[in-house]
Amino acid sequence: MLKLIHYTLCPSSRAIRLTLNEAEIPHELDELKPWGLDREFLNMHPAGTLPVLMDEKRPVCGASAIVEHLQERQMGEAKSAARFHPFPSGTFERAEARRASDWFLRKLDAEVTQYLLEEKIYKPMSGIRSSPDLSAIRVARANLRYHLAYLSYLADQRRWLAGDSMSFADFAAAAQISVLDYLGEIQWDDCPEAKNWYARMKSRPAFRPLLSERLPGVNPPQAYANLDF
Amino acid sequence: MLKLIHYTLCPSSRAIRLTLNEAEIPHELDELKPWGLDREFLNMHPAGTLPVLMDEKRPVCGASAIVEHLQERQMGEAKSAARFHPFPSGTFERAEARRASDWFLRKLDAEVTQYLLEEKIYKPMSGIRSSPDLSAIRVARANLRYHLAYLSYLADQRRWLAGDSMSFADFAAAAQISVLDYLGEIQWDDCPEAKNWYARMKSRPAFRPLLSERLPGVNPPQAYANLDF
Repeated sequence: MLKLIHYTLCPSSRAIRLTLNEAEIPHELDELKPWGLDREFLNMHPAGTLPVLMDEKRPVCGASAIVEHLQERQMGEAKSAARFHPFPSGTFERAEARRASDWFLRKLDAEVTQYLLEEKIYKPMSGIRSSPDLSAIRVARANLRYHLAYLSYLADQRRWLAGDSMSFADFAAAAQISVLDYLGEIQWDDCPEAKNWYARMKSRPAFRPLLSERLPGVNPPQAYANLDF
Repeated sequence: MLKLIHYTLCPSSRAIRLTLNEAEIPHELDELKPWGLDREFLNMHPAGTLPVLMDEKRPVCGASAIVEHLQERQMGEAKSAARFHPFPSGTFERAEARRASDWFLRKLDAEVTQYLLEEKIYKPMSGIRSSPDLSAIRVARANLRYHLAYLSYLADQRRWLAGDSMSFADFAAAAQISVLDYLGEIQWDDCPEAKNWYARMKSRPAFRPLLSERLPGVNPPQAYANLDF
């Protein structure tokens, strides 16, 4: 049985959870707090990031390595058995899905989500009593406008974010957006194309377990878990 | 014919060039300056990073997508024809090579090399006349000590950085180190294990074309291109 070491509001962890759920790959979850990783974890994965996938008790570290691992695993399955491949079958479609996934997993993450998670969740949860860094929050919100515009553009031009078929790029983006939405950072009325795409993502059964999780003391906006928002 | 859009001192570009050379894959080079990417380039690759590989005039954007593209291409070749695969053949060995590649391509890059390139090369080359940000340079140098210690540890514990076989992790690390060495940032006497590994990398024919390139007005230390340093 696969085991995913994750954190509920970690966007990269969510991207892999959505992929595992969509592909209906049985797995267990083990939650760790990103601000409290111990020496044992760091010996296994010195970068100290989540998620890590344990496959036959051997670690696959980091969302990029994990999704390639899952892709190869699915390619090895009989065609009928593998319901969902993280990356599409055409060579250049795959390259585009990897480019777009990287954009959401790394660039949107570094320019927006990590700032907000750090200030709104990680600092208070880990017991740091300093007030939030408002300039970091301002930068994140300014960057978010550009990222939502780009997401809207892709959602408007294409059936799915990386092309004609749903891919890991959609789950990478949906994972980030779901965390930002939990934090109340998204004004959906300002970006109808992105909203339309996110409504389709949210209604997939793969999304259900994530939408029902709550952080003690931190509630999302009312519409967060609604399929009609 | 493949064409790689690159910049001579861009570490990610160098990692792909070394991989193409090692695998003896014929390709052309087209050099762009990272500080002067035009609208046409950004339409193709909105993240605005190098390198981009043009394959049959279609773009594969970013070092991660390119190396997976080259891996798949090599897997498709007859066994005898493909001399070098970027990632090893064992599933978990591949995961470890991807983890280590990510470390060098992303983490070392963000924590060390990009600061130094920005202050020492990109700012002056692009005509920005402000003096270099000494605090950025200090942070980069402090981080470099930890990164050289980790590189030395891997070089001491393993035959190659990700395990028993040479992989993209070695080229990702060697690309970063070669840029830092060009900038005169590495004191080789302080890290004999890393030096030993880098001497092996430098002596590969794949490395030769890179070591002979010079930036106008910016010369590397005397030992930069020497195989015996």
